Amino acid sequence: MSSGTPSLTRMAHALRFLAVDAVEQAQSGHPGAPLGMAEMATVLWTRHLKHNPSNPAWPDRDRFVLSNGHASMLLYALLHLTAYALPLEELKKFRQLLSLTPGHPEQGLTPGVETTTGPLGQGLANAVGMALAEKLLAAEFNRPGHAVINHMSYVFMGDGCLMEGISHEACSLAGTLRLSKLIALYDDNGISIDGHVQAWFSDDTPARFRAYGWNVIAKVDGHDPAAVDAALQQAREQAQQPDGRPTLICCQTRIGQGAPNKAGGHDVHGAPLGKAETQAMREALDWPAPPFEVPAELVSAWSATERGRTAEQVWRLRFEAYRSDYPELAEELERRWRGDLPQAFETELADKLRQLAAATQPLATRKSSQLALDALAPLLPEIFGGSADLSSSNLTNFKGCVSAGRDQAGNHLSYGVREFGMAALMNGMALHGGFIPYGGTFLTFSDYSRNAIRMAALMKLQVIHVFTHDSIGLGEDGPTHQAVEHVPSLRIIPGLEVWRPCDAQETALAWSAALQRRDGPSALVLSRQNLPALSRPEQAEGIERGAYVLREAAQPCAVLLATGSEVQLAVQAQEQLAALGVAVRVVSMPCSNRFDAQSSAYQDEVLPPDLPTVAIEAAQPDFWRKYVGRRGAVIGMRTFGESAPAPALYRHFGITTEALVLAVRGLLKI
Amino acid sequence: MSSGTPSLTRMAHALRFLAVDAVEQAQSGHPGAPLGMAEMATVLWTRHLKHNPSNPAWPDRDRFVLSNGHASMLLYALLHLTAYALPLEELKKFRQLLSLTPGHPEQGLTPGVETTTGPLGQGLANAVGMALAEKLLAAEFNRPGHAVINHMSYVFMGDGCLMEGISHEACSLAGTLRLSKLIALYDDNGISIDGHVQAWFSDDTPARFRAYGWNVIAKVDGHDPAAVDAALQQAREQAQQPDGRPTLICCQTRIGQGAPNKAGGHDVHGAPLGKAETQAMREALDWPAPPFEVPAELVSAWSATERGRTAEQVWRLRFEAYRSDYPELAEELERRWRGDLPQAFETELADKLRQLAAATQPLATRKSSQLALDALAPLLPEIFGGSADLSSSNLTNFKGCVSAGRDQAGNHLSYGVREFGMAALMNGMALHGGFIPYGGTFLTFSDYSRNAIRMAALMKLQVIHVFTHDSIGLGEDGPTHQAVEHVPSLRIIPGLEVWRPCDAQETALAWSAALQRRDGPSALVLSRQNLPALSRPEQAEGIERGAYVLREAAQPCAVLLATGSEVQLAVQAQEQLAALGVAVRVVSMPCSNRFDAQSSAYQDEVLPPDLPTVAIEAAQPDFWRKYVGRRGAVIGMRTFGESAPAPALYRHFGITTEALVLAVRGLLKI
Repeated sequence: MSSGTPSLTRMAHALRFLAVDAVEQAQSGHPGAPLGMAEMATVLWTRHLKHNPSNPAWPDRDRFVLSNGHASMLLYALLHLTAYALPLEELKKFRQLLSLTPGHPEQGLTPGVETTTGPLGQGLANAVGMALAEKLLAAEFNRPGHAVINHMSYVFMGDGCLMEGISHEACSLAGTLRLSKLIALYDDNGISIDGHVQAWFSDDTPARFRAYGWNVIAKVDGHDPAAVDAALQQAREQAQQPDGRPTLICCQTRIGQGAPNKAGGHDVHGAPLGKAETQAMREALDWPAPPFEVPAELVSAWSATERGRTAEQVWRLRFEAYRSDYPELAEELERRWRGDLPQAFETELADKLRQLAAATQPLATRKSSQLALDALAPLLPEIFGGSADLSSSNLTNFKGCVSAGRDQAGNHLSYGVREFGMAALMNGMALHGGFIPYGGTFLTFSDYSRNAIRMAALMKLQVIHVFTHDSIGLGEDGPTHQAVEHVPSLRIIPGLEVWRPCDAQETALAWSAALQRRDGPSALVLSRQNLPALSRPEQAEGIERGAYVLREAAQPCAVLLATGSEVQLAVQAQEQLAALGVAVRVVSMPCSNRFDAQSSAYQDEVLPPDLPTVAIEAAQPDFWRKYVGRRGAVIGMRTFGESAPAPALYRHFGITTEALVLAVRGLLKI
Repeated sequence: MSSGTPSLTRMAHALRFLAVDAVEQAQSGHPGAPLGMAEMATVLWTRHLKHNPSNPAWPDRDRFVLSNGHASMLLYALLHLTAYALPLEELKKFRQLLSLTPGHPEQGLTPGVETTTGPLGQGLANAVGMALAEKLLAAEFNRPGHAVINHMSYVFMGDGCLMEGISHEACSLAGTLRLSKLIALYDDNGISIDGHVQAWFSDDTPARFRAYGWNVIAKVDGHDPAAVDAALQQAREQAQQPDGRPTLICCQTRIGQGAPNKAGGHDVHGAPLGKAETQAMREALDWPAPPFEVPAELVSAWSATERGRTAEQVWRLRFEAYRSDYPELAEELERRWRGDLPQAFETELADKLRQLAAATQPLATRKSSQLALDALAPLLPEIFGGSADLSSSNLTNFKGCVSAGRDQAGNHLSYGVREFGMAALMNGMALHGGFIPYGGTFLTFSDYSRNAIRMAALMKLQVIHVFTHDSIGLGEDGPTHQAVEHVPSLRIIPGLEVWRPCDAQETALAWSAALQRRDGPSALVLSRQNLPALSRPEQAEGIERGAYVLREAAQPCAVLLATGSEVQLAVQAQEQLAALGVAVRVVSMPCSNRFDAQSSAYQDEVLPPDLPTVAIEAAQPDFWRKYVGRRGAVIGMRTFGESAPAPALYRHFGITTEALVLAVRGLLKI
């Protein structure tokens, strides 16, 4: 093998040994899947994948997602060998603190990693989002003869991803939307952690995906480079057909392929091979090189530096031709890729917010949210909204929005009843670039999408969740639909900003903050029921700081702290207490996460540590102890809700002005 | 129609008008689905369903699940008309406070409601769990000639349930396990809230379910009673075949059928028809009776009182014959149905716990959990364990446990990578009766199953979640797998008891508490890494109370409060502080929910309000403010974790003995 071009099988072995050696070095990790997928990866990355290791941010690169993220060493080996900025030293630090090679691939950390994976099924759904973003962006920007956006999204996945429910949500939608540039390669090795999957997973997966409207290429020998190559070729060709469909390529593989004694069993899934087996593998595969050493001819065969530069250069020429025909489109597209907000938005925002803040009639904050979208969305071509089949309840649609569909570009999507899928697709769109995705459902169903919200926070993605019908205020739908623990449980996801605005101005500013927050997700928690306008235009800065004195009193002897629909109760209680001669301050806290990021001087100014404080929120109350301490009081929901009209529920659960007055009097012993 | 037996169509109209009248009266609710499913319901409930309205607890009744729970009025109408204890007055109080007819069906509240539904897809998964329970119980208890357990599980569902990912998880597993006594009726009306589903849901659903190994009966006219009847007949017959499979009956229906102007559109889904349309419907369907009045011949045709009593009586005779041949089995089966724990468990528990508490070597609490199962599970034939493809990581299997499968009864199931499905199936098994289900996954994936955990809490079901690899202690798998916000976010689900034990004894007592808690779910949060034995046998009572003084000091001037893997740090800090002449108390709090239920005297005894307190937990810290106040200190995780060996992570994030010592010195200013 020392002369001539190395075979693809030999190239695959380079992946295998890097993976095995790194897992061995770390004494931790998953060798089974990298070994099993080595040929699939080699064929895809050397024969098909359009990418430039010197510029992982090239906008028209193909996307590659490793949905079975535990196979991370496969990806690191690929990135290293194709010559991304991932040196061998980093592979030797696999799974060590602050290395570029963590246990599961982390987007934003390692050059070339397109999304953070590990929680199964979500990478696949991210890839669907990427393919959707590509299709939408191409429809918006490409012009005849100018296909400046034209790339594939590839995803590797195992049976774990296919067992997860989210695979159904995402792939059903991908089929419906005919995302033909999505190609998924299934590592069908028949083994999961518990053993042979047949006993718990006997789906006819090709038939399942045909039922979704996919192009399925079944029974491909995943260790035969020619077979994998032919399948990819077919998939890419049909992707360009007018009626193209997403493709599933079912690669039959052997887990741990290459490990002479352990291949084919589940022990090889998640533990180092061990010294003896690693040595035996070296002998079996005729691989004399010591650990972490890649024979020179393979280093050179693998490097994609030249091929990548050329590919990008070809595209840059195409883009310059586009620019010369469509200078404004080119400029706009570059702005979208950079992620800058449009000039018009920057200049008109203040005016729009002023108008929105001027609302005086009572409005549900979900309605205020829609009014904010009516005002702001037309300024933001990158905005892409949607709802998990609750558009007219979440009010995520806005004036002039266009429904996106199979044959229709647009800026609002009916995602169907697929909360988790929607959230993970939104992550994929944000990762792809060119869009600010937002999506709606009832707050209680944030449970369904919770891990994708978490992943957005972990990846610092700008996605916006619109969660309406936020507590017992939704009324008759009852306890299954009444979120009582959701707001406090969302607030503690690191990096997520949770807004629970009390009126139209707070809602508009929550949208403004979420739209301007480019490095993390936001959740807007909105009421079904009408709420009075309470905040004043001059309080905008306080709102943006997350909490502020909404209603001051001279020499207050206590503080009422409230959010969202309960702020009105605090304002009423202040008035009733004033009539009793008790001066209290009302603090509105639309976003505790923002408030926690303020200086302690500001925090103490708003919530003086020596003033007794009563918090009120129609939610599980423990969260508020961080602001009211052990000796303050909290009025909230310790139980699930009930089915009844909202006013009856507020009375029934004692979330009332009277309760606030009593609590203050109790604290002050008056 | 006034003489003779009313037609099934006419009987269906009785359901229609009760539903429409109740929604009209409430001015809130969902008429569309009840109208569309009226014939399906009539045929199933009058021709097939084996039930006894006088005894909703008859163990061998067929189970009926309304997975599209927003169609609740259909179910209430069925229960009322077949003569369950649900009088007309309750239907008139539809969606009113504390009525028996809440917005979505609530198990435990309304006689005959088998499970609480509303969050889509979960009812279907509950039904899979019920069918699994039936199959397992039949295999365990039936004897030749004595089929004392032999009932069907029926489920109604809409396209929403089928779009949800959990439908994939549950139905794929149901097909694999050949749960032939499960019959699902799909209300295929082509409409969801956003409109015509074709634009976002174009699955070939029959093909999808055939891919799962189901028996599919496609294209049944859902408004033709004879067609529905024939399909049910076929499904029931093949259910009894040796190779029977679960059945999907696809009923093509029209949403809002009967409403002359609104049928077929999405406006009829979730809003009252209005006075005019209701009146027009009365005319169109020749229904002169005023609201809530059911013509006498229909009342009598619908009543299932006699048929039900007879059916149960026939079964009781069969059961007595069984008892006479197998008295011990009959007694044991009755015990299982009652939900009493076995005598042997009661008598041997104390001994077993003592033995488990005697462990002195360091053990991972996931291992301690397995040892507890080894000791206790053999005493509990009703226990049914499993794992979402992590059996050997979660250590949910125990000595002598038998893997359940398609052709094999057993007491441990590999659920596959289906966390949400597993949790909802467990709920279904608990609802069915005869089992105490528990299931394992990594704590971080409690996000996937979260809403099913919530539903268990809402329904007060005894299910036990085994969540291992509980924080940064899992090490190299990194931030996707390191749960930092999960423990505090689970603790605030009302009614869920969350245990995070620090050693073998606390783990054994957590199991003991969870097994004896018949009216609610428990979550056991367990470490991957070894933890030293710290608690002493005489502290068992304190553990059961949720928190206790683990290590006292004479005249303590501060308290260290810790859980799980961080308790050892508090013990070490106590020693270091003692060396500095600072006496502090160490409190271990394995279950905050239990502690919160203690008298305030006990609470103040353990955590004296005047002692400065430092809490430590490798999790988001805000939760602890309820115990340490604003002026105490909390050591925890404000960010996501990292990929590295566990000891490096503890140092990196400052979750250390040194940090505790510093915090105490800071609070005491020494």
